[in-house]
Amino acid sequence: MEEIKSYVESNRERFLEELFELIRIPSISAHKDKEKEMVHAAENVRDALLKAGADQAEVMKTSGWPVVFGQKILDETSPTVLVYGHYDVQPVEPLDLWESPPFEPEIREEKIYARGADDDKGQLFMHVKAFELMISTGTLPCNIKFMIEGEEEIGSPSLKLFCKENKELLKADVILISDTTMIAQDIPSITVGLRGLSYLEVELTGPNRDLHSGLYGGAVANPANQLAKMIASLTDENNHITIPGFYDDVQEVSRQERDEMAKAPFDLEGYKESLDIEDVAGETGYSTTERTGIRPSLDVNGIWSGHTGEGAKTVLPSKAHAKISMRLVPDQDSLKIDQLFIDHMKRIAPKGTRVEVKSLHGGQGYVTPIDFPAYRAASKAIEDSFGKKPIPVRSGGSIPIVSDFEEVLGIKSILMGFGLDSDAIHSPNENYPLFNFFKGIETIPLFYKYFAEEVK
Amino acid sequence: MEEIKSYVESNRERFLEELFELIRIPSISAHKDKEKEMVHAAENVRDALLKAGADQAEVMKTSGWPVVFGQKILDETSPTVLVYGHYDVQPVEPLDLWESPPFEPEIREEKIYARGADDDKGQLFMHVKAFELMISTGTLPCNIKFMIEGEEEIGSPSLKLFCKENKELLKADVILISDTTMIAQDIPSITVGLRGLSYLEVELTGPNRDLHSGLYGGAVANPANQLAKMIASLTDENNHITIPGFYDDVQEVSRQERDEMAKAPFDLEGYKESLDIEDVAGETGYSTTERTGIRPSLDVNGIWSGHTGEGAKTVLPSKAHAKISMRLVPDQDSLKIDQLFIDHMKRIAPKGTRVEVKSLHGGQGYVTPIDFPAYRAASKAIEDSFGKKPIPVRSGGSIPIVSDFEEVLGIKSILMGFGLDSDAIHSPNENYPLFNFFKGIETIPLFYKYFAEEVK
Repeated sequence: MEEIKSYVESNRERFLEELFELIRIPSISAHKDKEKEMVHAAENVRDALLKAGADQAEVMKTSGWPVVFGQKILDETSPTVLVYGHYDVQPVEPLDLWESPPFEPEIREEKIYARGADDDKGQLFMHVKAFELMISTGTLPCNIKFMIEGEEEIGSPSLKLFCKENKELLKADVILISDTTMIAQDIPSITVGLRGLSYLEVELTGPNRDLHSGLYGGAVANPANQLAKMIASLTDENNHITIPGFYDDVQEVSRQERDEMAKAPFDLEGYKESLDIEDVAGETGYSTTERTGIRPSLDVNGIWSGHTGEGAKTVLPSKAHAKISMRLVPDQDSLKIDQLFIDHMKRIAPKGTRVEVKSLHGGQGYVTPIDFPAYRAASKAIEDSFGKKPIPVRSGGSIPIVSDFEEVLGIKSILMGFGLDSDAIHSPNENYPLFNFFKGIETIPLFYKYFAEEVK
Repeated sequence: MEEIKSYVESNRERFLEELFELIRIPSISAHKDKEKEMVHAAENVRDALLKAGADQAEVMKTSGWPVVFGQKILDETSPTVLVYGHYDVQPVEPLDLWESPPFEPEIREEKIYARGADDDKGQLFMHVKAFELMISTGTLPCNIKFMIEGEEEIGSPSLKLFCKENKELLKADVILISDTTMIAQDIPSITVGLRGLSYLEVELTGPNRDLHSGLYGGAVANPANQLAKMIASLTDENNHITIPGFYDDVQEVSRQERDEMAKAPFDLEGYKESLDIEDVAGETGYSTTERTGIRPSLDVNGIWSGHTGEGAKTVLPSKAHAKISMRLVPDQDSLKIDQLFIDHMKRIAPKGTRVEVKSLHGGQGYVTPIDFPAYRAASKAIEDSFGKKPIPVRSGGSIPIVSDFEEVLGIKSILMGFGLDSDAIHSPNENYPLFNFFKGIETIPLFYKYFAEEVK
């Protein structure tokens, strides 16, 4: 432990400089014109792995953005850990809300501010540096492989096929992922549940052209009004989702397990204050942590129709659009939910309109067992470095690929995330506390140590 | 009549060339950076009036875009007609739906295609050319004044004050306006009713920043979902507006008058076909013409929130916006309706959100008497030139300034419009048939002739 601390201490500045170099590359996977930047970011990660001590590292082609694969094999008898992360980031709009440019990392109040500072460049880079540390100090007890993709923020469309085609190469005993949060710097936790996702786009068409709202208003179905009605009807007064069959496969969590979960500290007043809202809102009968942890949800992620610019254009729009996503819980199936949603929207589209719905992306939920070696190793590592045993929690977010890993590769994942809810990932002013970044680098080698012991 | 026809015939090409010159100026009043274009358009109209034979014509300052005033005074004993029109046009978005550039007028299938071809450059220009015709042929029987404004499409915010400050200059016996439609080329009509307007913008704020929809979805009120619910609740299953007090002042039209109105030909199948809709939709218990003619309506003119670009950004947006307008009928008061709407939105904004509503523009409805000299003159003029007596109809559109004219100047207006519903005003591919343009020029001098006889 002392050795780890002193290595991190004497390399702090360099670690940050190297991370900043990666962050400065605007690798926004949703932007199809970012090929140069995406490849540049992948090459940066490859070079960092080689520099840290990988035997081999390369940028591998996929049907989409490339995957960086790297490894250091000690011998065939040692256990193997496969580190998963992603070098792509979310778009940065609205730009005017950023206090410093998203791709020019800046340290303010002991936090790194930048797109990707946490999600996931900051978190994946902890693994690269922990790897370097173990190589430099001769303490690496496991074989280690890295699979760092570039499409996580767009739903990992190519990764499943990549895994299928590279099963041998990716063989491992566990997949280690840092792409989630812990409760607080002094309340460490491990994510043991992730929600699944169905993300769709709806286009409602009324008349065949934009009309004058005076000449036609009141006589023709306005797709903007009608889409609002359709969306409004998707949840009832208890914030229960009304799509027929939606809850059929939901795994109900027992009263006992809910009571256990309720013991995790949660500061409702602080939560409301940090969001500047008068009150929380969600499904009747569930607490805030239950609403994001064990219950599905439905959100409009985007909506647009008609005149959205300056002034008062009196248009009755021809079309209205919405992006709508549902977070799913075990055992809801993302493809089945997509179809239920599509069928339902077609059923409720009112007379005088036509609806088109397409699935944009999705993935299954996941629950990690807490009685397997990787969980125990992560728990001990965190207890050592944070001085407190971590709490197992279910998170509201989705990493759809985790269930694919289990399906395709037959390997379970452990979600040892070091982010905080306040890191504003996917938002303007994304940030990552220096404390978490360096604490992560210190914790990871301990995971390898305990994991090697567990599976010996 | 023969003299009129032959003058128009021999000047067709020149009339079009001159109109096209005016159309080519992109005088979009909603765009604050269009000062050069707005002044250019005003000067073009001024010069056209001088060339046609005005004693005096000038571009007059207002608190907003300028007004063009021009006149030709014969003598104090002759009746005076004040022509109102507007040289400003609507924005042109979405540009990709135009088949030819909006400010490069093009004739296809005997129609002029361009922004402003009908609304209102085409229609106002008929008056300029009819004026020229009467001067050239020595047949002008009335004093004539022109007031051509540049803010009609943004609700004429400066014109009321302009009228107050220029009451003497604007003195007239009637205001003649061509900014409305007729039923069809072979079914002439005169608009005798206009709806009023309340146009507001709503901003609903939830959390203080965009959130990750996985981590927060289901636990925090999403302003996009909630705004959809608020909008949905503004109309009930009968498309009745639910804002308390909204219908209090609505002038109910008698069964007898509704039966009269129902005699106007209306081709429902053709209407549906032209809009490519399976069915019309509106307030239960009223016909399509009644829904736009004698009943108020509520339309979303624009809505936007969250991620509206490419891809699947999993954002729970901080804010959602909508532009919502209501068309009003006599005796609804636009300011009172604004307030009812604002109060109602504040009342129904759900817990965990904050709502801001601001009025963007508005105006009162108007009903023209059909038993006054100007109506009789317009009716005779149209009967002469179209060969059929025009039908009085109530239109769904709004020209808010018409009721202001009566209030401030004490002058009634006659709405002798030559547009067609198929002209796609406010839409891509706005157009104006050559037939209507030239027929308008031929009809207007007859109006002056009959009006002079009526008021003698």
